Amino acid sequence: MEIIQIVGYKNSGKTTLVKALIETLADQGIRVASLKHHGHGGAPLGIEETDSEQHRRAGAVLSGVEGDGLFQVSKEQAWDIDQMLAIFRLMDIEVVIMEGFKKQSYNKIVLIRSEEDLHLLNEVTNIKAVLTPLELKQENYAYLVFKKTEMDALVEWISLRIQ
Amino acid sequence: MEIIQIVGYKNSGKTTLVKALIETLADQGIRVASLKHHGHGGAPLGIEETDSEQHRRAGAVLSGVEGDGLFQVSKEQAWDIDQMLAIFRLMDIEVVIMEGFKKQSYNKIVLIRSEEDLHLLNEVTNIKAVLTPLELKQENYAYLVFKKTEMDALVEWISLRIQ
Repeated sequence: MEIIQIVGYKNSGKTTLVKALIETLADQGIRVASLKHHGHGGAPLGIEETDSEQHRRAGAVLSGVEGDGLFQVSKEQAWDIDQMLAIFRLMDIEVVIMEGFKKQSYNKIVLIRSEEDLHLLNEVTNIKAVLTPLELKQENYAYLVFKKTEMDALVEWISLRIQ
Repeated sequence: MEIIQIVGYKNSGKTTLVKALIETLADQGIRVASLKHHGHGGAPLGIEETDSEQHRRAGAVLSGVEGDGLFQVSKEQAWDIDQMLAIFRLMDIEVVIMEGFKKQSYNKIVLIRSEEDLHLLNEVTNIKAVLTPLELKQENYAYLVFKKTEMDALVEWISLRIQ
């Protein structure tokens, strides 16, 4: 199972890139999954959260609620990435597009909005490419630099690497 | 992994029994999980449903959102029970208390509110016990009959069977 992380601050274009990647890979018949943190702080609350909460309080290790294609699994402690990826593996996923989780060490595409974001390049590991509106000189970087306008080329480059 | 189904109509006391079972089993150090259908029709909507929806529309087979112990996994088609149970197995769950899903054939406790509910006993398989306010004659049934007031005894009987 191949894992690609898309890392960048808010409004750096993560969602657009993630969707373009999913579309391109899915079109090639690849079983793609996405994984992201809940962005607004706190849990991705659902209608049934109260019920799950009650079961967890009663001592359930896991509490699952299912309906119309959505399966919510609550757990007392935070999920670790490996547990979530194990579930994806179980479902025969071939490629995971992971949004965020920047402390993880999977291959990364980093989105840089402006010079204030450049420090991110020193804080994460395994960068394979950068997408940015800035004029960065390719020769200064050990990974590919794509201009913001070249997103399609970046998506194509990733999809060729995956096959 | 042991699976126990709690089956009964609305307001038959399912939630109370499920919680009592979770508490008792968890107290014994057993890794318990609960599984239920979303009760209100439709999906257990979460704040991030829109995002997951977008990813699914782009072609993702699975779309996962995680935050504060809750992991929501959306899938284009409905989840089947075996897929959900496989996830629980992966998490080393020892006992699953399944609320509803009455067409499944796991061991069942059936909750009967009144005579109008009695037909349920002919419609589900693998009944191991019944909990009811009705005066049912034990000798007429191939499974144990517990009076509604004997819920504690039922919970104890289940927990002894599990060890």
